[in-house]
Amino acid sequence: MVYTLNLAPTRPGLIEITDRVRGVVSESGMSSGLCTLFLQHTSASLLIQENADPAVCRDLEAWLNRCVTEGDSIFTHTSEGLDDMPAHVKSALLPASLSIPVSENELMLGTWQGIFLFEHRRLPRERSLLVHLTFDEDPKLSL
Amino acid sequence: MVYTLNLAPTRPGLIEITDRVRGVVSESGMSSGLCTLFLQHTSASLLIQENADPAVCRDLEAWLNRCVTEGDSIFTHTSEGLDDMPAHVKSALLPASLSIPVSENELMLGTWQGIFLFEHRRLPRERSLLVHLTFDEDPKLSL
Amino acid sequence: MVYTLNLAPTRPGLIEITDRVRGVVSESGMSSGLCTLFLQHTSASLLIQENADPAVCRDLEAWLNRCVTEGDSIFTHTSEGLDDMPAHVKSALLPASLSIPVSENELMLGTWQGIFLFEHRRLPRERSLLVHLTFDEDPKLSL
Repeated sequence: MVYTLNLAPTRPGLIEITDRVRGVVSESGMSSGLCTLFLQHTSASLLIQENADPAVCRDLEAWLNRCVTEGDSIFTHTSEGLDDMPAHVKSALLPASLSIPVSENELMLGTWQGIFLFEHRRLPRERSLLVHLTFDEDPKLSL
Repeated sequence: MVYTLNLAPTRPGLIEITDRVRGVVSESGMSSGLCTLFLQHTSASLLIQENADPAVCRDLEAWLNRCVTEGDSIFTHTSEGLDDMPAHVKSALLPASLSIPVSENELMLGTWQGIFLFEHRRLPRERSLLVHLTFDEDPKLSL
Repeated sequence: MVYTLNLAPTRPGLIEITDRVRGVVSESGMSSGLCTLFLQHTSASLLIQENADPAVCRDLEAWLNRCVTEGDSIFTHTSEGLDDMPAHVKSALLPASLSIPVSENELMLGTWQGIFLFEHRRLPRERSLLVHLTFDEDPKLSL
């Protein structure tokens, strides 16, 4: 089964969406299986990262912004804004899809892991995230 | 079900393979489910990227070639050619597997998304791409 | 079905775990399907890489250590050690989950591909790897 989560426009950087994904798993009633996320964009990313200290996310954003810089003279695709081509490079380096096992209707994340949307563009826009659930058990039997 | 796509030898860089993958999904008759791609190589990658303006791919290739350079003195594994170790680094930074949900027998890609093979070696060679399909419905029932 | 593999503490760098994953697939009795790995940590990674010449792994480690440096003044999250924030950046750049098709009870890896744990921290710690198996056939029928 596939669900679509519409993620509200946000500032550039990491926004935790673990609870949104958890909500889909919960509502599905799936006992155990696999939860696969797929982001339908090439200028934003998905990421599993530590969700305890917010400084981790800020440092990661700062490091990546220094690694992939706006105004880099190597970029020729500039018509959509100075932050467009850096966004495409970041979306190549970071995941567009992620798969997380589910057990007892819970995402099997590690203690410090959260799921994040990584917005790479400055102009806020809604993002569309697909959540696919593979049931280990036959879903028809559990209804 | 697993299918093998043999991808023809190509120049280094991004080559769109969306239609090849779409063909496998179409022939399978799968209504909804999950399409997982796995590339059987460590010197090429898979990538979801914008397929509208070819300059995006060219800029991405240029950025990555500057980031991971041939002849870098840090590399000791040079017996297979100057472009071999950079290819391994690129294949670490970019995906070897990707999962895309399927609905109504169509890959649920975003408007601007295409699936690409990213060839990192200069000597053209055939590449082997596995396409695994997880059916949401029982495939036996739909035949 | 989900299995948990406890990976013994190890030095920083790449450690091959292909045989551990192969063991899970073998014991499961799964004929064909999809094997999805998920690492429950944000300071270590999974990687598909060449397992023939050990110099490939050493060069990759050296390249990444130069790319993401300890003591970088851009990092503010330093309370957990100088190698903590670089570990988070590396875990963002490299995969946390991987999916590999299975056929005839064998992982369909390419000739030169191995599965590796990439430990990014210096203080050795046990790591927890989830192995989820999606059966193409109905597992109840094959018992």
